[in-house]
Amino acid sequence: MIPPGATLGILGGGQLGRMTALAAARIGYSCHVFAPEPDSPAFAVARATCAAYEDERALEAFAASVSVVTLEFENVPATTLERLSRHVPVRPNAAVLAIAQDRLAEKRFLAERNFPVSPYLEVASPEEARRAFLAIGGRGVLKTTRFGYDGRGQRVVSSPREAEEAFAALGIGPKVLEAFVDFEREISVVTARRADGAQASYPPVENRHERHILRTTLAPASIAPSLAAEAVALAEAVARALGVIGLLAVEMFVTRDGRLLINELAPRPHNSGHWTLDACPVSQFEQLVRAVCGLPLGDPTPFAAAVMDNLLGEEVRDWPRLLAEPGARVHLYGKREIKPGRKMGHVTRLLPLEGGLKR
Amino acid sequence: MIPPGATLGILGGGQLGRMTALAAARIGYSCHVFAPEPDSPAFAVARATCAAYEDERALEAFAASVSVVTLEFENVPATTLERLSRHVPVRPNAAVLAIAQDRLAEKRFLAERNFPVSPYLEVASPEEARRAFLAIGGRGVLKTTRFGYDGRGQRVVSSPREAEEAFAALGIGPKVLEAFVDFEREISVVTARRADGAQASYPPVENRHERHILRTTLAPASIAPSLAAEAVALAEAVARALGVIGLLAVEMFVTRDGRLLINELAPRPHNSGHWTLDACPVSQFEQLVRAVCGLPLGDPTPFAAAVMDNLLGEEVRDWPRLLAEPGARVHLYGKREIKPGRKMGHVTRLLPLEGGLKR
Repeated sequence: MIPPGATLGILGGGQLGRMTALAAARIGYSCHVFAPEPDSPAFAVARATCAAYEDERALEAFAASVSVVTLEFENVPATTLERLSRHVPVRPNAAVLAIAQDRLAEKRFLAERNFPVSPYLEVASPEEARRAFLAIGGRGVLKTTRFGYDGRGQRVVSSPREAEEAFAALGIGPKVLEAFVDFEREISVVTARRADGAQASYPPVENRHERHILRTTLAPASIAPSLAAEAVALAEAVARALGVIGLLAVEMFVTRDGRLLINELAPRPHNSGHWTLDACPVSQFEQLVRAVCGLPLGDPTPFAAAVMDNLLGEEVRDWPRLLAEPGARVHLYGKREIKPGRKMGHVTRLLPLEGGLKR
Repeated sequence: MIPPGATLGILGGGQLGRMTALAAARIGYSCHVFAPEPDSPAFAVARATCAAYEDERALEAFAASVSVVTLEFENVPATTLERLSRHVPVRPNAAVLAIAQDRLAEKRFLAERNFPVSPYLEVASPEEARRAFLAIGGRGVLKTTRFGYDGRGQRVVSSPREAEEAFAALGIGPKVLEAFVDFEREISVVTARRADGAQASYPPVENRHERHILRTTLAPASIAPSLAAEAVALAEAVARALGVIGLLAVEMFVTRDGRLLINELAPRPHNSGHWTLDACPVSQFEQLVRAVCGLPLGDPTPFAAAVMDNLLGEEVRDWPRLLAEPGARVHLYGKREIKPGRKMGHVTRLLPLEGGLKR
């Protein structure tokens, strides 16, 4: 167990790292954030190292200063994780990251273990993209296997020709063509797992996207209790299969015929878990700290229902009105530069949970 | 208005400064903490300057780096505040601090404006202490006028001789003898005030002390609505009279015949307001940031009742059990050294508020 008072290392300095550092401080930890971007939002609330992920000397000094390393961002180079793990536990580890970083590896990992995923085919050329489209039938989504987020690195394709064109448009490197899922809704589960196998999960939430960026999370999702239980069981089974220590966010589609299909995994705090900051006794960020430090996992039972809206780009300029709204919980990430679609903050509004405040 | 993205200066680096910095970060501010103690808990979550309050050069650099200065600790030297206020707004200002730092000045300020306080007399010698005891009649409490906290600098006296002895035992400097109040309960109100006069108050809470240190806060206090309204009105009137910008905590006695007597003022976040972190949409710490930055004051309406217990000294070693308790919200301050009675953390437990979750 890594007790309060120790220093937690965080790879990545965005809002997820910032909120992790704030949650860690709340229960007595210090944090050391390692990130390459000088204007990293997390630097303001922790000890900071601004260096490249390839900077061996900086990595060694970082490793020597912390008791455990976690991350807010799955695209940390594997070599960075390997170097750090010679000196200090890295949770989640390089093996988990290798899968979560690569859409194709992720799909294979899930499919081989019979977890439900939409049909997919690997494609290495425009010609393969055309053939894959024909094999899958109907619409598909062509995706790069690496570095995709918020809709970057993907195209919906509706004809063999579009599949060919999209392959070229998405740049070099392997791709995967996934059958387009005509889903009823998108849900996600954030689950936590400790090294000893203990697990705890927040209830499934419903996510609404706009131009591939998360717009709104409704928590808990309005789905049948049996489906909610199935989603939680699925997320926990994937976390066990992966051997995640820390958090795993599992995005799923609910198909029109009521089945669950896993869309994406993220072994870190997730935008769809931000509501937990204001509606649960222990937030996803504190839960991450607890999981990687081997503390008792916190109670994930919400005491209120919540609607979480991201503040994207210029929307953040609305902060004076939001701060004046009774009951609204405003979170701003301290980012200096506003860019279209950039996650600048979020606002959570609570609603009564059926049956009132649960203890 | 000082918008999110700006840097807030905080004088004092204890847990109150730490929690203020965490709350400021939540709504997009950066913080710069100035404190003389190298192991200040707030240093880990903000930019830090470790220097004496008399260090002119350090104060100037600090002032130049921030948009506004607030404080977590009222015993900052007046000269420090004056120096800073030449360069940057200091909220609350030196005039407020001059009163809150000095028990006698505080009593006079309140009595002159007809705010209810217990009878008191200034005493400058053992002989005056004896005479004051006789004048007040019955038991009294002899207190130093400066630097008293958590029961330090005060003695209950039950005879003229004890009054004389206590004067010597409390060291040099003026003292004040207050009539002992046989109260029914102790309550407090944390109120916020902006430069433009806007005010917002949390409901009164009940405080239970043990050896003069706050043990437990029950929120809201179980008192008649009319008495609660009177307590809030009193706190707000004192804040207006003082011209506080920021927070004012007003500790009061409820006498056995149902009157309110003001015991003490603190123009900063207050231990009896920690419950707001977990039971109100906007905590006292965020409210302080909003007040000194001129933002809309937050909604102080609790969505749950709360019991807040301090973790004093060795009690903090109980953290594994507390972290495992469902629903308990544990706060640890990251203090390395455990000392008897030292505030190491606190734990808040929520209870249903009559009528369920309020929006």
